[in-house]
Amino acid sequence: MNLQIRENIVTRFSGHETFTLRYTWLPKAVHHIKSDPELFSREDAMVSLGVGKNMVRSIRHWALAFGVLEDDPNIPNNRGRTLRLSQLGEALFGDDGIDPYLENMSTLWLLHYNLVSKPDSPTTWFYAFNLFPRMEFSSKQLLDELQNLNNETENKKVSSSIIQRDINCFIRTYVPPKKSKNEVIEDTLDCPFVELALLRETTTPNSFCFCRGTHSSLPTEILVFALLDFWDTYNPGINSLKFEDIAYEVGSPGRVFKLSEVALSEHLHKLDTVTKGALRFDSTAGLSQVYRSRDYAPQDALKNLRSSRSK
Amino acid sequence: MNLQIRENIVTRFSGHETFTLRYTWLPKAVHHIKSDPELFSREDAMVSLGVGKNMVRSIRHWALAFGVLEDDPNIPNNRGRTLRLSQLGEALFGDDGIDPYLENMSTLWLLHYNLVSKPDSPTTWFYAFNLFPRMEFSSKQLLDELQNLNNETENKKVSSSIIQRDINCFIRTYVPPKKSKNEVIEDTLDCPFVELALLRETTTPNSFCFCRGTHSSLPTEILVFALLDFWDTYNPGINSLKFEDIAYEVGSPGRVFKLSEVALSEHLHKLDTVTKGALRFDSTAGLSQVYRSRDYAPQDALKNLRSSRSK
Repeated sequence: MNLQIRENIVTRFSGHETFTLRYTWLPKAVHHIKSDPELFSREDAMVSLGVGKNMVRSIRHWALAFGVLEDDPNIPNNRGRTLRLSQLGEALFGDDGIDPYLENMSTLWLLHYNLVSKPDSPTTWFYAFNLFPRMEFSSKQLLDELQNLNNETENKKVSSSIIQRDINCFIRTYVPPKKSKNEVIEDTLDCPFVELALLRETTTPNSFCFCRGTHSSLPTEILVFALLDFWDTYNPGINSLKFEDIAYEVGSPGRVFKLSEVALSEHLHKLDTVTKGALRFDSTAGLSQVYRSRDYAPQDALKNLRSSRSK
Repeated sequence: MNLQIRENIVTRFSGHETFTLRYTWLPKAVHHIKSDPELFSREDAMVSLGVGKNMVRSIRHWALAFGVLEDDPNIPNNRGRTLRLSQLGEALFGDDGIDPYLENMSTLWLLHYNLVSKPDSPTTWFYAFNLFPRMEFSSKQLLDELQNLNNETENKKVSSSIIQRDINCFIRTYVPPKKSKNEVIEDTLDCPFVELALLRETTTPNSFCFCRGTHSSLPTEILVFALLDFWDTYNPGINSLKFEDIAYEVGSPGRVFKLSEVALSEHLHKLDTVTKGALRFDSTAGLSQVYRSRDYAPQDALKNLRSSRSK
């Protein structure tokens, strides 16, 4: 399967204008798009959003890449001019959304899943989390592999400096910049995804390591969302999934969230309760599998999350 | 001077309901107070702010403690029922504010200064940054000293468990919770002030260390704001301040921002430029001092900051 996925990737190494996502950008984009769906096509978007021109483009890029906004399909010949909230954007940041100001870690986990789990995700993000065989890697190794990928595919060839810039942005999404003495720190907050602690710098400069582990701030409800979405995307129409696939396949929750087998198994043991019996994990008969007995949409798991928040 | 400050402290060890400030709370409080100055007295504040009852109280506490909101003095017999934006709240988060969504590190530095620099600040925060003689300390040592302080003063005596809760909240303001395997992590983002890297946990459990250093994300404009505010609060009416006072006195920028002498001195060398000659640092005549030649309000430094942001 991996080979086929690899061949079908349409490489995309730009759009973020080298800015990582900021806390306020998705709520801000959603807020503005609701009153003005053509905001990002307007000359005065800089004024409305209170940022410079490059940042306007970056906000648009991220709102689309995270799947919070989408092209409005009801507008003929739209081509990205008129945007609207996606179903997920509505569920998270809409009027009755579960986290309209982006205040919860669970929202970050969900957005992370949405950003990296599909072949049409920003290439570096998808490749690093799903196809890259290394847990520890140097920036140079990632660059070499992405260049190979780009050369193999039918897509427009891009220069290594563009891919390198994309890698730098990818790293800064998950790893805080070093606060060293001689560096000038930009006057901006770290990218929120740093808090997920999915990637860390090793003692070797410019080398990084994925952190596979418990990730205890990940709620089971978000894992259920990802599991169902993974199921419908990569394995539609079947009614059971093997533990190994959920743990290691491209786009799987175990792989995208870098969960240890123990942690994943603990989440799966709660499936029955969280989904009110729609999903069930069974590891008694020698084969560990999740069984799906009836329809249960990814969004249903989010409703659950909302009702479990009582504070 | 310190003795007198110590004696005049009105100890306050509560109000935050054990929640640290969240990114969105100050912009949210400001946004709501502008349309409804009595919001926090209303039964339905929970609905408007989208949080539980304790969090409503916590948001109110922090908005007042950071000096972003204030009692409206035009309402007779107000007693905290009707709030309004303070001058600082307006400058930061108002309609024409410099950082309406709280997106910049400089805003965090400014809010930090405002929170900890005055004797009427939340006691643990003021004491730890200004009167506590240790750079490295255990939670227990801070507790002992705060209990002594509370016993010395005329204020209502509070139990050690209340002070301990306050210390825990203080620590979590600046130090990220350990993301260990066996702990359940709350589904909330770290307190934004963690990014200032002013305090870190040492290898001894429950022991902490202030990080005195360069803090290169602190802009000179914010240092100027703090310097002028410190000047007007603690040394009004004089026209020069010694380097040592700016570096080490209670409420001073050097002390509150935990700056090394070298870093402070680098900021002071930029005073002349940043304040267009209103402040000048002179260390040529054997005595290092800052001279103030004309009126220049703390707020003027912020205007400068705004015009230096071009992105």
